Amino acid sequence: MGSTDKPADLETAKEVPPPPKGAAYGSTPPPPKHDYFFVVDVVLRFLVFAASLTSVLVIVISKQTVHLGPRISVAKFNHSPAFIYFVAALSVAGLYAILTTLASLSVIWKPILSTKFLLHFVFLDVLVLGLVASATGTAGGVAYIGYKGNEHTQWQKVCSTFDKFCQHVVGALATSLFASVLLVLLVWLSTFTLHRKIPK
Amino acid sequence: MGSTDKPADLETAKEVPPPPKGAAYGSTPPPPKHDYFFVVDVVLRFLVFAASLTSVLVIVISKQTVHLGPRISVAKFNHSPAFIYFVAALSVAGLYAILTTLASLSVIWKPILSTKFLLHFVFLDVLVLGLVASATGTAGGVAYIGYKGNEHTQWQKVCSTFDKFCQHVVGALATSLFASVLLVLLVWLSTFTLHRKIPK
Repeated sequence: MGSTDKPADLETAKEVPPPPKGAAYGSTPPPPKHDYFFVVDVVLRFLVFAASLTSVLVIVISKQTVHLGPRISVAKFNHSPAFIYFVAALSVAGLYAILTTLASLSVIWKPILSTKFLLHFVFLDVLVLGLVASATGTAGGVAYIGYKGNEHTQWQKVCSTFDKFCQHVVGALATSLFASVLLVLLVWLSTFTLHRKIPK
Repeated sequence: MGSTDKPADLETAKEVPPPPKGAAYGSTPPPPKHDYFFVVDVVLRFLVFAASLTSVLVIVISKQTVHLGPRISVAKFNHSPAFIYFVAALSVAGLYAILTTLASLSVIWKPILSTKFLLHFVFLDVLVLGLVASATGTAGGVAYIGYKGNEHTQWQKVCSTFDKFCQHVVGALATSLFASVLLVLLVWLSTFTLHRKIPK
């Protein structure tokens, strides 16, 4: 019974779609293309997650202890509010990226909801982009003072002493900049896919 | 002549669209709604321009001279690379905003190109958002050090001396944050309008 039922279902499933397509409008439906989009989307989102996680880890493990004569000086990311904001923002971005990677995977399995997902992805991606870009700017601005100093305000450079710490900061900044670029690409990709669904 | 021309144009504009719509497919086309969208778009873009211009002007005229005993100290925005980047970024954003305000106005006059414009607006708005958000972060991070100092790096606060300068910086930061929020709203609005054009 079961073995005869299933082929019958497949037959009807194959036979039902063609008539309406060819008969009335002759338009070719694009579902397979959208699946292809969501594969790229998943890859980009996973890269955002990886970049955010790397960025957070690199700056969190950047602690450096230096012996300056009798004094012991320590450089840690949480000595600067800018780097605390950076870690918080990139953690949020990483969490968001892994959640939306799963959401995007779910669309590959159930493509019916793809348009709704695309819209919400753009809405949220833009917010996270703003967060990551501002955090990169904040940490970058402070890191630049650490690297060059500022003679007008008499803020001394600290990177000549804490070289390893500054290398970590630069690494974290580079990966968060990479995450920003990926988020821009994600918004572009989603918008372009939405645009393609509009009938000419 | 002018008074008779205009009503005639409006009449043809109202009369031409209905025949093709009703004749072939009977679908209700939404052009009037898109016009309404582009009016909001123009207003938001003009506000981004106004906010960017205000932000640049407020920080450029922030020069403060203070007499500390025999010494004369001057605080200017170009004493910090972070504020120079801020002025450059907000100038680009202001120029971009006024150009796209005109582009958006042109779409109100010729709605045929609206879909293409929406796509390109999202592509560029996202880039400018990244620029403005990072500039706000950079200037904000440095301003925070000026306001609070940092005892770990022995960077002294300067806002206790240069109060007027710091007030200008805070004003510029607030308006650039406002510009960032407007740019997010612009991306949301364009994407939502694109989404609405997709047949259900």
